[in-house]
Amino acid sequence: MITPVLLCGGSGTRLWPLSRKSYPKQFVPLVGDETLFQASAKRLSGPDYAPPLVLTASDFRFIVTEQLQDAGLDPGAVLIEPEGRNTAPAILAAALHLATTDPAALMLIAPSDHVVPDAAAFRAAVAAGVPAAQAGQIVTFGITPTHAETAYGYLELSAPPKDGHATPLTRFVEKPDAATANVMVKADNFLWNAGLFLCSAQTMLKAARTHCPDLMEPVGAAVTQAKTDLGFLRLDPAAWGRARDVSIDYAVMEQAKNLSVVPFGAGWSDLGGWDAVWREAGPDARGVATTGPATAIDCDDTLLRSEADGLEVVGIGLKNIMAVAMPDAVLVADMSRAQDVKLAVAALKDKNAKQATAFPKDHRPWGWFETLVLADRFQVKRIVVHPGAALSLQSHHHRSEHWIVVEGTARVTVDEDVKLLGENQSVYIPLGAVHRMENPGKVPMVLIEVQTGSYLGEDDIIRYEDIYARE
Amino acid sequence: MITPVLLCGGSGTRLWPLSRKSYPKQFVPLVGDETLFQASAKRLSGPDYAPPLVLTASDFRFIVTEQLQDAGLDPGAVLIEPEGRNTAPAILAAALHLATTDPAALMLIAPSDHVVPDAAAFRAAVAAGVPAAQAGQIVTFGITPTHAETAYGYLELSAPPKDGHATPLTRFVEKPDAATANVMVKADNFLWNAGLFLCSAQTMLKAARTHCPDLMEPVGAAVTQAKTDLGFLRLDPAAWGRARDVSIDYAVMEQAKNLSVVPFGAGWSDLGGWDAVWREAGPDARGVATTGPATAIDCDDTLLRSEADGLEVVGIGLKNIMAVAMPDAVLVADMSRAQDVKLAVAALKDKNAKQATAFPKDHRPWGWFETLVLADRFQVKRIVVHPGAALSLQSHHHRSEHWIVVEGTARVTVDEDVKLLGENQSVYIPLGAVHRMENPGKVPMVLIEVQTGSYLGEDDIIRYEDIYARE
Repeated sequence: MITPVLLCGGSGTRLWPLSRKSYPKQFVPLVGDETLFQASAKRLSGPDYAPPLVLTASDFRFIVTEQLQDAGLDPGAVLIEPEGRNTAPAILAAALHLATTDPAALMLIAPSDHVVPDAAAFRAAVAAGVPAAQAGQIVTFGITPTHAETAYGYLELSAPPKDGHATPLTRFVEKPDAATANVMVKADNFLWNAGLFLCSAQTMLKAARTHCPDLMEPVGAAVTQAKTDLGFLRLDPAAWGRARDVSIDYAVMEQAKNLSVVPFGAGWSDLGGWDAVWREAGPDARGVATTGPATAIDCDDTLLRSEADGLEVVGIGLKNIMAVAMPDAVLVADMSRAQDVKLAVAALKDKNAKQATAFPKDHRPWGWFETLVLADRFQVKRIVVHPGAALSLQSHHHRSEHWIVVEGTARVTVDEDVKLLGENQSVYIPLGAVHRMENPGKVPMVLIEVQTGSYLGEDDIIRYEDIYARE
Repeated sequence: MITPVLLCGGSGTRLWPLSRKSYPKQFVPLVGDETLFQASAKRLSGPDYAPPLVLTASDFRFIVTEQLQDAGLDPGAVLIEPEGRNTAPAILAAALHLATTDPAALMLIAPSDHVVPDAAAFRAAVAAGVPAAQAGQIVTFGITPTHAETAYGYLELSAPPKDGHATPLTRFVEKPDAATANVMVKADNFLWNAGLFLCSAQTMLKAARTHCPDLMEPVGAAVTQAKTDLGFLRLDPAAWGRARDVSIDYAVMEQAKNLSVVPFGAGWSDLGGWDAVWREAGPDARGVATTGPATAIDCDDTLLRSEADGLEVVGIGLKNIMAVAMPDAVLVADMSRAQDVKLAVAALKDKNAKQATAFPKDHRPWGWFETLVLADRFQVKRIVVHPGAALSLQSHHHRSEHWIVVEGTARVTVDEDVKLLGENQSVYIPLGAVHRMENPGKVPMVLIEVQTGSYLGEDDIIRYEDIYARE
């Protein structure tokens, strides 16, 4: 049995506006109907795989369990990183956690935001690495290069790779310049480094003790002092804060001598920009790829994406353009500037635009909400509550609320009263009343909330009780 | 006194998505804070001008009066064209209407969707044409050409024009090819035809009797049988339907011998496409013009417009691109394709997308509404009711409604009950109940309506009473 270790902490800005700090890329269906995280977890499931061990940030913990559940997958352990410390501390924490039950357990470490269309081929490559991993090797999976890419690191092999076989690694090559990339892509013993590793927990720990011993104490303490919280394992923040922020490549892999490489040539992308999304989307003969209600008229080599049902995007006479539209933000860029999308995020941060980091749908442990309209003295929200879920028992200082149930059934508490509301029923929550909304039913409950008051910020909330242990 | 005759019937598609059939270009603030219609009416106001005579379609009648009121202008007569029959019948109707009170009345005929930044200079040009108009001439105002434009017709003068003087017209020149345009722009006796005319009502009628006598009977009957309706003058549909669909240029001007031209060189645009809007918006040194929350990063010769407060538009590395974003539709096009925006409208019509013709804000005599969310069995709307206005007394077969007042005061009728609701008060309208919403106050009333039911179309309405005489 192999335990997938899914690294799920990133918050890239290169796929803004669809990927935002509050809801990053791996949780979004960028290619196909599943999110990248769901596809990654599914890819590493089946008879040879244990439930995944997921490393993520606190903000994303409920998204992780919800998306695994939606994909019909068993959630394994979810380790919460108190803050992002790069890949080395995260992978060591996973190894330490696994080693407490089985030091020989094999772990397949994988980012959760890549695209691998042929999952079976990928599992076959993993299987081919198992004997070497069992023999104490760290096996990495190198992607057969298709072009002289300068955005990836490379793996130099001691001999040309053979499908289904592990070949010893000679060295890691940092992201090259174009000339070097050109030489490597023509040689027969270089592969792309995709950050995929297979080894036993004890092999990883031994390598760490040798190559980055300073990480062992803080990460070890973060794991042993971790607190269980509603099924999540919260690494100890104080100990975690002492761990160096460092990548596994730099801390371990570039120094370890026991590395081998299994080649993988069946298709892979890290979706590192909208240009990569465009390529993976399967452009037509003129190079046009559209998603959602988008229409291309006389366009070439262009990506047009609409991310909402009621949002029509039309391109006319475009060449090498990517346009991504959401109801609250639109990006239009030359395709060659895909790596500069972070400039858009920075510009919006500078002007304090919430679209820089906040997703229009705000995901919470109990479901999600979105603001339909926000004015000076009123706000209208759509609130969707999962079956069995409950919002906290709360009150507000500055606003009253009208709730109208439009789908499903709500159990509503207002001070001493508790009542059930069905579709088309409403209730009024006066300013200051202690109230709670729950979905006792078997289907999602949808409610329209109309707030009025002088201050409508999310921080006007006093929580009395919360089944998700929020403060 | 000169009566402005404002032609306000167009429904251009070249400025989609901001201009749509349901709310065309002249009613939109395309350049500056005023709408083109408001700016046109203001330009032709002051001591020398009578209140305007507006020719418009039935759908736009309340928008016309509302926009005149908002601009602080007296509404003159509003003649409703039962259907669009081009400019000749519309101008003849205006002349016949004016002639009933004063055959010598001067009329200044003007489209209401052009931009003329220097209104005082334009009024001075009009004043310069008055003596000729009083002497029985039809005076047109020719725009000094700035380039060899092929999209406009030209006016050939008998001599080079002089500012402040009317020069006899030799002939109208149809939209030329590029070579002809080049010759004309270099000559000193050609001006652009902007469709602006000054003459007395009797001069126009005399010219029509001579050059298009077939129009006199149907247009005459449409005016004499017109019905007054809430202050609007509805031309008789049957008579109007018999009038030939023809432009004033073709029906009268190209044949009349009594034409003179006053030149106008102080700036004019017909805003015939987004490229014209870009030019009028005053692009910066790199050619970038932005409107609303739009950010250009390393762009050249690019128009970026966001038409909503909460909609951030970002362009990166664009050249010769126009991007116009609304919450329900986004256009991205190469600047050279400005005249092909109609293809976007056609493509959306083909796929039955409502964005082809319908504006997200639905303007009604009493105010406006917009759909905030539309689902299978519920819909949420924001409804804004003008002070003193009232919706019809109505009922629905398939939906119940919850109303929550969030600004101002509503008077609500539900069957036998009539009550006042203030901010933060709500009322429930059961399915089948006869109900009405009014704003008895002095400020706009804003209400959130939550509908639930099996059918939510606007046509599920039975009207019992309507102060706007709708059926």
